[in-house]
Amino acid sequence: MTAPIEFYFEFSSPYGYFASTQVEKLAAEFGRSVNWHPILLGPMFKAMGSQPLTDIPLKGDYARRDFARTAALFDIPYDHPDPFPIATVSAARAVLYVRQHDQQKSVELTKRLYAAYFSEQQNISGTDVVLAIADSIGLNVQDLAEGIGQDSTKAMLRDEVDTAMQRGVFGSPFLIVDGEPFWGFDRFDHIRRWLAR
Amino acid sequence: MTAPIEFYFEFSSPYGYFASTQVEKLAAEFGRSVNWHPILLGPMFKAMGSQPLTDIPLKGDYARRDFARTAALFDIPYDHPDPFPIATVSAARAVLYVRQHDQQKSVELTKRLYAAYFSEQQNISGTDVVLAIADSIGLNVQDLAEGIGQDSTKAMLRDEVDTAMQRGVFGSPFLIVDGEPFWGFDRFDHIRRWLAR
Repeated sequence: MTAPIEFYFEFSSPYGYFASTQVEKLAAEFGRSVNWHPILLGPMFKAMGSQPLTDIPLKGDYARRDFARTAALFDIPYDHPDPFPIATVSAARAVLYVRQHDQQKSVELTKRLYAAYFSEQQNISGTDVVLAIADSIGLNVQDLAEGIGQDSTKAMLRDEVDTAMQRGVFGSPFLIVDGEPFWGFDRFDHIRRWLAR
Repeated sequence: MTAPIEFYFEFSSPYGYFASTQVEKLAAEFGRSVNWHPILLGPMFKAMGSQPLTDIPLKGDYARRDFARTAALFDIPYDHPDPFPIATVSAARAVLYVRQHDQQKSVELTKRLYAAYFSEQQNISGTDVVLAIADSIGLNVQDLAEGIGQDSTKAMLRDEVDTAMQRGVFGSPFLIVDGEPFWGFDRFDHIRRWLAR
């Protein structure tokens, strides 16, 4: 079986960012491709009654330490963003709009958005920032600005989140491999063991 | 530096159990010993406003699946216990009482208690079950039964939990290596990378 790896991520998630830098390598080791799915954690956290890691007593300080340490251990550029977390609706919509016409370009935009937020202190919650980043990789900004605001693009993001929840996704990163769910950047090693059996 | 690895665990924690089967191997790879600290998650969950993984919507089903899969991927015997989770005060007190006089035996008791609960469907919340397991490894049951009930033993467990929280421990397993905190069985690989630097 060589179905693509379904990769769900939220733009405000550090572990989602880490995963985005390693998921293609993981997939390639097993002759797989990757389907990239930007989602929003907000609706999922609401269903679980949970909150961002860094807002939780005791766990918050550890989480911030673990973000930086994980990045260092895997040689991933990281500068903990301020503000954190942020709203990522514009970023997710932009990626979905681009994905309709050019999957490769949407992956490139995803990586640039993640890098901008987690290693360059760019607040990608603003549509203007998203558009500037899109411009820097040669996307048509006027077309994209219009696309982000379209009802069909908004519906696409709602559908992604709804479908994700129906498939059991509740966090970021979340990967589905041949129907098997894996939550967390720290499950990459489990995916390797699982696929190698 | 060759300070021992400080290993905190709760007897009702599957990932604590997995860690207990692998922590000595991890430590040995770096010429370290292990200090074993049974704790209770109850007071920590209270401070964080959190609850057992399996009680959380969406996350609960995934957690149960991940317990079994993680065990399989690491060749650890596992049969998800019923009831789960359980009160583990007696088990923790028994281990601490034994540890005062015989550290090696307390580690042996820890491993037997974990195996009984997570691979043999023995409900170790009962003091009678804890004592029967202690008996099976040659401990003086009458002495231990008395020891579990002593105020000094109760105080030892409270101290372990208080000290753990002061050191930032909030989950199980939780390992402290040369002052650096690592939460989760899935951080064993990070500990390896961190120590190998």
